[in-house]
Amino acid sequence: MNKQDIPDIIISRLPIYLRALRHMQAGGKLTTSSQELGAGVGLSAAQIRKDLSQFGEFGKQGTGYDIAFLVDQLRKILRVERVWDVVVVGMGDMGHALSRYQGFSDRGFRVAMVFDNDPAKIGGQVEQFVVLDAKEIVTAIRKSGIKVAMLCVPEAAAQGVTNLLVEAGIKAILNYAPISLSVPTGIRVQYLDPSIGLQRMTYYLE
Amino acid sequence: MNKQDIPDIIISRLPIYLRALRHMQAGGKLTTSSQELGAGVGLSAAQIRKDLSQFGEFGKQGTGYDIAFLVDQLRKILRVERVWDVVVVGMGDMGHALSRYQGFSDRGFRVAMVFDNDPAKIGGQVEQFVVLDAKEIVTAIRKSGIKVAMLCVPEAAAQGVTNLLVEAGIKAILNYAPISLSVPTGIRVQYLDPSIGLQRMTYYLE
Repeated sequence: MNKQDIPDIIISRLPIYLRALRHMQAGGKLTTSSQELGAGVGLSAAQIRKDLSQFGEFGKQGTGYDIAFLVDQLRKILRVERVWDVVVVGMGDMGHALSRYQGFSDRGFRVAMVFDNDPAKIGGQVEQFVVLDAKEIVTAIRKSGIKVAMLCVPEAAAQGVTNLLVEAGIKAILNYAPISLSVPTGIRVQYLDPSIGLQRMTYYLE
Repeated sequence: MNKQDIPDIIISRLPIYLRALRHMQAGGKLTTSSQELGAGVGLSAAQIRKDLSQFGEFGKQGTGYDIAFLVDQLRKILRVERVWDVVVVGMGDMGHALSRYQGFSDRGFRVAMVFDNDPAKIGGQVEQFVVLDAKEIVTAIRKSGIKVAMLCVPEAAAQGVTNLLVEAGIKAILNYAPISLSVPTGIRVQYLDPSIGLQRMTYYLE
């Protein structure tokens, strides 16, 4: 099956199922149901069944899902049964926080390189990383073969750095800068803009 | 019209339109079209028109959208024509970064209070804020009337703190902890989990 055949909205929910299942697993649970998983993530059992059915038959009538098996399958589908090296560009507060973030290691990611363009920061240490000069983005990333980047530069610099990341062979960008990025077809961007998250909710406030 | 009548997926796109329109505005543009706005956010012109038509008739045949007018309308729809006070709970790296974040001020939000449960942090200063004791969450937030919170505590503490926030009258939670939260009906949660953002993209990587 072609990857583009499955709606992105379904793909967007799989990491949330995976997180909830791993949480159950950490709590010692062995099996679950569409009802229980749905309740944990705020969706209906029917939605869970429909989404998972796109990828195969994971549950058994009457006994539900084997959590360890479903975790393995989702990790394979999302391609996080391996570990992806990730670069972080921009060593401000957010870049620092991400470089130190403990939540990546068992979810398929590892920060491998960090960049900044500030002479005061270049060559300095952030966690176990030496901050590389942003001028080296294209050569250093190309050499490494890294495909995933987290972008934490100011808004005004974000598109320029994005162009360099694309030139360097980056295929997936997690963007913390509060700006929509232009990228060529085939490059994925996800946005983590706290104001957007907040504005989605204020609509509903009385 | 009842707010629940408009699909949440449409609401979720409005802040992105607003961000793109304000970006155009900052660049000195006065008018735009569905085509141009769509290109800026990676959606079709038809999608833009369909989404906006849920709320009224904002464009003029032939001349497109008056950007300033559409910005005003979207800010009103999303209720960010006012400024919402926000609490930050958890003064680790992420909480610090959010407390110092410059991107909220003109987008409808202002950090007003910060909390932690670490005696070494309580009473200390983070930017202009004195870190309050997490034990005071319910009383301090109730007294202030604040409705919006950003949650930056470790995974193990997240549900417990969420229960306190709900008790304190918080109605919207931006959750940075990598865990799905259980909240009563009527409380909104948005998740900013970087691993989830990354896993949505690795599915598509070769």
